[in-house]
Amino acid sequence: MRKSTPLDGSSRSYRPAPTCSDTSSSISASANSRTPSRNTSKALSPPPVVLPVKTRGRLPNLHHNLGRQRSAHGEESTRAGAKATAVTEAGRWRQEIRAGRWRGPTAGLAPGYAQANLVVVPRAYAYEFLLFCQRNPKPCPVLDVTEPGDPVPRYAAPEADLRTDLPRYRVYRDGELVEEVEDIRGLWREDLVAFLLGCSFTFEAALQRAGVPVRHLECGCNVPMYVTTRLCRPAGRFAGPLVVSMRPVPAEQVPRVVQICSRYPLAHGAPVHVGAPSSLGIADLSRPDYGDPVPVREGEVPVFWACGVTPQAVAQRSKLPWMITHSPGHMFLTDLRDEDLAWD
Amino acid sequence: MRKSTPLDGSSRSYRPAPTCSDTSSSISASANSRTPSRNTSKALSPPPVVLPVKTRGRLPNLHHNLGRQRSAHGEESTRAGAKATAVTEAGRWRQEIRAGRWRGPTAGLAPGYAQANLVVVPRAYAYEFLLFCQRNPKPCPVLDVTEPGDPVPRYAAPEADLRTDLPRYRVYRDGELVEEVEDIRGLWREDLVAFLLGCSFTFEAALQRAGVPVRHLECGCNVPMYVTTRLCRPAGRFAGPLVVSMRPVPAEQVPRVVQICSRYPLAHGAPVHVGAPSSLGIADLSRPDYGDPVPVREGEVPVFWACGVTPQAVAQRSKLPWMITHSPGHMFLTDLRDEDLAWD
Repeated sequence: MRKSTPLDGSSRSYRPAPTCSDTSSSISASANSRTPSRNTSKALSPPPVVLPVKTRGRLPNLHHNLGRQRSAHGEESTRAGAKATAVTEAGRWRQEIRAGRWRGPTAGLAPGYAQANLVVVPRAYAYEFLLFCQRNPKPCPVLDVTEPGDPVPRYAAPEADLRTDLPRYRVYRDGELVEEVEDIRGLWREDLVAFLLGCSFTFEAALQRAGVPVRHLECGCNVPMYVTTRLCRPAGRFAGPLVVSMRPVPAEQVPRVVQICSRYPLAHGAPVHVGAPSSLGIADLSRPDYGDPVPVREGEVPVFWACGVTPQAVAQRSKLPWMITHSPGHMFLTDLRDEDLAWD
Repeated sequence: MRKSTPLDGSSRSYRPAPTCSDTSSSISASANSRTPSRNTSKALSPPPVVLPVKTRGRLPNLHHNLGRQRSAHGEESTRAGAKATAVTEAGRWRQEIRAGRWRGPTAGLAPGYAQANLVVVPRAYAYEFLLFCQRNPKPCPVLDVTEPGDPVPRYAAPEADLRTDLPRYRVYRDGELVEEVEDIRGLWREDLVAFLLGCSFTFEAALQRAGVPVRHLECGCNVPMYVTTRLCRPAGRFAGPLVVSMRPVPAEQVPRVVQICSRYPLAHGAPVHVGAPSSLGIADLSRPDYGDPVPVREGEVPVFWACGVTPQAVAQRSKLPWMITHSPGHMFLTDLRDEDLAWD
């Protein structure tokens, strides 16, 4: 297990040695503890694509965006005229990842920027997956969808390349996890569509700002996740169970936690379940299906959130012919701010 | 102009004679002022499809629904076992419409039930339209999407038939409004997909509950709507301007109005613009592109919401080959409650 300092110099440990659990983490990253400096970006390739100045920094709230930064037909022409300016903190981390200098989990990197789950499917079933997301917005809140064959998420991070900018990917064939890779350029095809889905890091940061303890972060392990007996609403070939993450919350803080998370519907939003794990079909909290177990202490209640790993469980259950996802914990760093994922 | 009593006997006039404007309304409904009774439903065809008992009455919050009422594979088998129970108030109005006994606007019918905008497109561009909705959730908040060829919105109103249950439809060909009809059974095809989008009636009811005046309801006319210079984020062949509705709000109530409407993101949510119509490209508030003008009085600010007529303006601008929509003001009555459209 490695422990290193995030790029911004903050003291938040994103992956210290686990103390709450001695089970092996489901994340077995190739540890590369080098801390990238702010000045390495010039050496990286490919050359950065630049954003128009007015879209930099504070990107518009996702759900308030109605064409202010994009024209109906002229996105490229708009961007073509932009001057190069400094990339975002998230962009610098993407450059590090693209250059192979970071293969670890992404929790704690570029605080304030929203991270995202990745799902890549062929155009042939992109409609069914988008419909699945529409029908199951709590586990699958859509932040961006690429054009077929285009690896650039034009809305969420117009400088990025989704084939290279995540530290680790998973490849599923016929519902089986067949491969974990650090780059998907060799797998990319002209008919692929990538979906970026909001991630719990956004609401965890909000909980921490409010002084609510987040157990797995205290413990330095991954959040425990469980495949439930609750079924998602199906769409075409996508059918399967809801996966939830669990965080123990002091009983008196449960209402506040619900309020805080409700602000971020694009980051899974409010919990889906409070207490009573057995009614979700969870027999034993100490044996999560993904991630690491954490203790639920006296006076605490297990609180459950819809989880972005759901599409992977659905791919397995549906025996989906082909899908690429991020590897759990190894997310995509967007240029959207956490606050862009707030509905209000 | 007709004035009649809604089915529930409430005194709210849904379509009294306009008093604020002497321009002709964009809604030219065939006036049929007969007030349907509660006991006519047995005479109507087709026979009602029944809901499982547990989904009746209080339907689950749309965004909290994760398969509780539908199984992954067994929706039909679940429903096959259900016993017939009383239809909802919304369902009774749908029966009246289906039987041809109601062709008027739907504002004020079945209070408490959410009404919806309708968009029907061929499966060939259903993905692009769903993506357009994802990219423009304020004008196009998706409540339900049907399976290709299926005229039944299984989620929003499992007893309904979208070919017959709206009082009035519009048919667009190559971007032109070519026809307004009372039934689309003759136009239905096996490749058609229907989208139901949330409607402003939901937040208008919430504003009224909070004592906020809603000018066009006071005036008994349709809300004024304007095609703006703001462009929606395009998706495939769907590209065009944002349409907004306008309601004058006393300056001191603007913050409260924003708060109230923010609760209903699936009913267009918070306003997109407060004051300064010229920055939306609106030169003259007294000349709306759809609906009727209403006065903005001293001490009031014009407040603008994203509007569900946007897809129609986009169809026109994009010269879309084929699309069916509801006729403005003649909405689809869902079995969802207004409160199901609240995010919290």
